[in-house]
Parts: sequence; C-alpha cells; structure tokens
Amino acid sequence: MEYTFANRMNRLKGSAVRELMALTARPEVISFAGGMPAPELFPVEGVKAATCAVLDEIGQKALQYAPTEGYVPLREKIVERMEKRLHIKTDIDHVLITSGSQQGLDFSARVFLNPGDVILVESPSYVGALNAFNACEPTYVEVPTDDYGMIPEELEKILATTENIKLIYVIPDFQNPSGKTWSMERREHFMELVNKYEIPVIEDNPYGDLRFEGEYLPSLKSMDTKDLVIFLGTMSKVFCPGLRIGWVCAPTEVLAKYNFVKQGADLQTSSIDQMVASKFMEMYDLDAHVDKIKAVYKGRRDLMLNCIKEYFPSCVEHTTPEGGLFTWITLPEGVDAGKIAPKCLEQNVAYVPGGAFYPYPGKENHFRLNYSNATEEQLVEGMKRLGKVLKAELGE
Amino acid sequence: MEYTFANRMNRLKGSAVRELMALTARPEVISFAGGMPAPELFPVEGVKAATCAVLDEIGQKALQYAPTEGYVPLREKIVERMEKRLHIKTDIDHVLITSGSQQGLDFSARVFLNPGDVILVESPSYVGALNAFNACEPTYVEVPTDDYGMIPEELEKILATTENIKLIYVIPDFQNPSGKTWSMERREHFMELVNKYEIPVIEDNPYGDLRFEGEYLPSLKSMDTKDLVIFLGTMSKVFCPGLRIGWVCAPTEVLAKYNFVKQGADLQTSSIDQMVASKFMEMYDLDAHVDKIKAVYKGRRDLMLNCIKEYFPSCVEHTTPEGGLFTWITLPEGVDAGKIAPKCLEQNVAYVPGGAFYPYPGKENHFRLNYSNATEEQLVEGMKRLGKVLKAELGE
Repeated sequence: MEYTFANRMNRLKGSAVRELMALTARPEVISFAGGMPAPELFPVEGVKAATCAVLDEIGQKALQYAPTEGYVPLREKIVERMEKRLHIKTDIDHVLITSGSQQGLDFSARVFLNPGDVILVESPSYVGALNAFNACEPTYVEVPTDDYGMIPEELEKILATTENIKLIYVIPDFQNPSGKTWSMERREHFMELVNKYEIPVIEDNPYGDLRFEGEYLPSLKSMDTKDLVIFLGTMSKVFCPGLRIGWVCAPTEVLAKYNFVKQGADLQTSSIDQMVASKFMEMYDLDAHVDKIKAVYKGRRDLMLNCIKEYFPSCVEHTTPEGGLFTWITLPEGVDAGKIAPKCLEQNVAYVPGGAFYPYPGKENHFRLNYSNATEEQLVEGMKRLGKVLKAELGE
Repeated sequence: MEYTFANRMNRLKGSAVRELMALTARPEVISFAGGMPAPELFPVEGVKAATCAVLDEIGQKALQYAPTEGYVPLREKIVERMEKRLHIKTDIDHVLITSGSQQGLDFSARVFLNPGDVILVESPSYVGALNAFNACEPTYVEVPTDDYGMIPEELEKILATTENIKLIYVIPDFQNPSGKTWSMERREHFMELVNKYEIPVIEDNPYGDLRFEGEYLPSLKSMDTKDLVIFLGTMSKVFCPGLRIGWVCAPTEVLAKYNFVKQGADLQTSSIDQMVASKFMEMYDLDAHVDKIKAVYKGRRDLMLNCIKEYFPSCVEHTTPEGGLFTWITLPEGVDAGKIAPKCLEQNVAYVPGGAFYPYPGKENHFRLNYSNATEEQLVEGMKRLGKVLKAELGE
C-alpha cells in the first residue's frame, strides 16, 4: 500500500534527542543527552499523599471530563507564582493548562503560522520547539546571539528587512541548549524592538525557577505593554514531568485561539494530574522543594564544569550556566560533533550533537551536555570517558 | 494590537458541546447534552489503590519523562483486549498511546490532510472529530447513511467521482451522535469498496465495548487485508476519561508518522496516568467493571426510550441504540432544534442541537440525547421537561 501523507509530514522526523534516548537506554551508558530532571528528587511520597487526598475529596470529579481551560485552583496557584517570581500580573482567564509546555509550542505554531511564514529563533534554539514548529512548515530566520542574548542590532536588521515575520521564539532564562541567560539590558532592548515592529513573542520559560546564583530577572511578559508576549510555563522541571502539566499565559484574544486548538487537539489535560499538582502545592511548600533541586543541580553543574577543565582538551569551550539543566560545548571550527558521538557511544557515554539545535544544517561543532540527570559518580566517570574520546580526536 | 493568525484559525470555533457544557453547569439544569460517563460508576477506590501501587513500586519512573510510544505493559494489555473483543491481531509496535482518542483524531488529520483535501464522513458525524479535522482545512463529503451504516451505493458513487479523497472517517459501533451500529453485511461491503479504491480509513471506536444486547461485531480493522484501517481506541468510556488515555493502532509506516506528530505535539501522554491504567487492569477485572457500566446504561437507555414514548409528541422520531451513550432525535422537516434549545434551557433541561454534527449547515431538525450521565430520577424529570417544551412547539 502506498500512502499519500500531508505535505507537512515531509518536514517531520523523529527528534534527535528522543531517538538518542532509545540508544542510550542500555544501563551501561552514562547519558548527558536527555533533558531529564533527577528522578531521586521527585516527591514520590508527596504525590502519593496528594493523589489520595484528591481521590478521597473529589474522586469522581478527578476521573471525569473537565473544562478545556484547566482546573481553576491550579490556574490560581500558577497566577500567584507568575506574579511572585516573574513579576507577571495576570489572572486565571489568561491562563490555559496544556499537556506540558511542549503542547504550548505546538499550539503557538498552529495559531500563528501558515506554510512559509517566518519565525525568528535564537541560534541555537530548542530542538523540540523546532520539531513542533516544523509541522506548520515555517521559514526560520536565526538571530545571532552572544553571551547576553539576541544581539539587538542583528535583530533589528532582520526585523527591518524581512517580510512576513509572524513570531519570535525565545528562551531568555538558562536557554536550551546554550545555558545562557539574557541580561536585563538586552531584555529591555528586545522589548523596545518588539514594540516597534509589533511582532508576537513566544517566551518559553521551563527552567527559570532553577537559578543557582545571581538575581532573578523579570520575564519579558512582565515588560509587555502591547499584549505581544505569550508566556509558556511548565511544572516539569520544578515538580515532575511525568504528569505533563504546562500552561500558556496570553492576551485574551490570543488565548481564545489556543483554547480552540486545545479543544480539537485533546479536549483537556488530564483532570487528575491537574488536581494532584494543585493539591501538592496546597499540602507542601513547592519553593522549598525547588530549593532542594537547585542545591543538587548547582553541585552537579560545578562538578561538570570542573570535569571539563580537568578532562577535556584545552581547545574545547563551554558556557557557564547560572541555572537550568545544560551547558553547551563548542569544538574547534570544522570539527563535527555528530561524527564523534558514535565513538562516545562505543565508550558508553552520550551527548546530543549540536546540529539538532539549528533549523538548517551547517553548524556541527557543538554539543549539549545535561548535568541534572546523573549522579555525582556517574557524572565524573562519564566526563572522563568523554574527555578520553575528545582527546583522541582533537589532541590534548 | 491587531494579530494576524494562521488561515486554519478561520475554520476553528469553540465546540458547540463544550460551550453548552458551560451553560449547563448550573446545578438546576438536567443536561442530556454532554457525552460524559456516569461518575458514580468510576472505580475511585481502585484508581487510588492502583496509584499507590504504582508510586510504591516504580514511583520515580511514574513521575519521569517516558518514551513517546507509551508504556509497554499498557500497550500489551490494549493489544490483548483488541484481539479478544475486536478480533484485531496486532502487537505493541503498532500501538501508540494518545491523550484520549480525541488526540488520535487530531493526529489523523495532521498526518493525512492538506488544505482542501477531501475527507468522507458519515452524515451526521462526531462534532469533536469535525472540530479536530477543521484545523487542517479539509473539504468534507457527507456519505448518506441509513439504519445499517453508510449506504454502499452512495459511497461508491462518491468514491468513483470525487478527486483527492484522502481519508474516510467512521464510527461503526453505537455511533456518535446517531447511536446506530453498522451491520455485518455493511462492514463487508464497506471494506470491499475501500480495498478497491485504496483509501485509508479512520475507525473510531470509543463505545464498542458498551453493547447492551445482540452480538459484538468484528471491527473494520480486523477485516483489513490491505493495511488501510487506522483504529482509534480509548479508555474514557470503560474506565474513566479524566486520565486521558487513548490509542492509535495503525500499519507500521503510518504509525511512524503519528509518532513524529506526537513528539512535536506533547512528547508523550502522562507517564503516571498510563501506569495507573495498566496497574488497574492488573489488579481488577476490567470486563467485570464494563459489565456493571453496561447494566446501568442499558437501564437508562430503556428509561429514556420509554420517556420518549410517554412524554414526546408523536411526530418525534428516535433511534434505538444497542449500546453506547446516545440516542438521536429527528423532528419534523423544517423544525430547527437549535431554536428550541434555548426554550429548553429556560426549563432547565439541555440537549445538543443536531446541526453541530454536520460539517455544513442546513440539517437542523435533529438533536442528540445522552443517557449515561443522569440518574434515573433526573432522567425522567428532564424528559418530562423536554416533552413539555416539544409539545408546546410541535403539538401533541
């Protein structure tokens, strides 16, 4: 049987990260490839207590269909948290619960993008976002970035000369994959340009709570005076990803469109998962839990950066993330990290080659390392193995 | 701020049913509008026991990211059930877990439909499916149906004369909204035509397990010799909808495409919800639970049909479902059920006007009644109210 699929399917392939995860499932592999939280920090007993409470108190409701927009008490808590940490003043009518923030990415593309429409992205950008956007067949324009975020002059050049720009997609805090955070000045400059050109912005903030040091910076959404910023949040990195709880916070007219897409896409996010997340926040102190996570991840980041210094060849560069889950490695110009990855796998250690994080091929001398999902012991052993392969390839 | 949304958004509006649900949330309204299972039958204690077992045994895994395809033990049980009840011989490599079967509908459109492509649907068809498909901007051709399913002569005429047909969408068992079930002969005839014209079929089977009387008939998928049928299943009606567990069973090449879409759409369905559903089936007898549901729904169907006889004007026709959740009411030609609905709401009783179940306007003299989600007392009282309004509108 020969099938005729929709044109959009030509743009979709399996995510490099998800496919690598299959290869790295062998227990002897130490993987720095995924973006998974440390499972030993999951509040398993807390989730159990919260689930029992939900089922005892509102069991029938927890197992029934529920409104598309999401569970009101959860949305109320999300609104509170957004104000406290991100200086976003909003209300529950501007919040839609999604099945992880990945679904917010998918919906963003579906709400705004016709085939060929232009979306601006950081260079590099999150592979899962590119994967979601691809289903709407956009054209990408990569905005050059440095250590402080998108470079305003480069952004303005693009805004002034490119037709048909529909969206700008950014991760200002502890970016995936680079680990970098936009400076306050860059945030302000960015919002000036966005206001001038009136282009909607998708601000993706999965890691923002996980700051190890320095000051929390206000979100772009909190600086938005023209209803241009659509904020995507998630419980995956501060609570647990298995429940698939994310949210979209957007202006009224825009959120109505996301809501229509949600209805057709899956009606609603799991009723019980939403209620459990909400109940957990009533029964426990989520901020105290986040503090525990940050302490562990900070230790692992320090350890990973030390291992880079100790075991990697001196020609290898890395970023110094102030939070989040990733550091970004740059190899000498012309070296292909994709070609070294199989040799690493032979030594039972894995990373994601950087090429996956660009919409178009050609930038292959990078890779992404995750430090949240390996014990200290695994981390040191894995970095030693990586260093050995890199030194064999690149010299001391 | 003026936003420019994607073209597809012109086709999307809120689902009539979901919007009605908001109106019918007042506690004094007796609603026959939704398609909700009876919450008093949900196995709340069983879900609690299963959740505790999952969290005790594999708690960290239950809260972590998991593979896109879904939880292996759940897929194994689904494969077994599909063979036992539906005569479908398959394996877990052909099963993808989705967030309810609504997500399977959304993905079906995204995998196959370019704007303007033709999809054949029963007339009437499920409003939630039309809503999902609309996001891919198809052209619909409605295939005339009678009490036994799609009329083969009409279907062949359409297949022979219509260009660009990409999909046929059907609900052969206890259809939503009509409550009708395709006869064996019609299933065979349908598959002959499908084989001849080689058009992929979406077989949506949310209610198939809920047969009150007569023989279970084999699924279209079980008669598929050319890898044309894509089967959508769900736990929502036999277990509970709040967990959002559905599945797609499809040929290898097709399922790979669904998998790519799933990765971009939401990475995976809730890990813990999948594990709880699987554990529940290990700890309890799901078939015995389904038997309980069937006994209650059969009683409510009987009661509703009796009430129609007793309280409705004699000019009103209805279907006699052998299972499922709905009966379909036909008013005299020219009467608009959408205009009577507000008068019913004034009397605190609700149904879904039939127009929502057709892709194009013009067939307004129908409405759908749900009998699963009202107690016997509510059911009689609600039907009395409905009958009173209908008699005032249409005479005795």
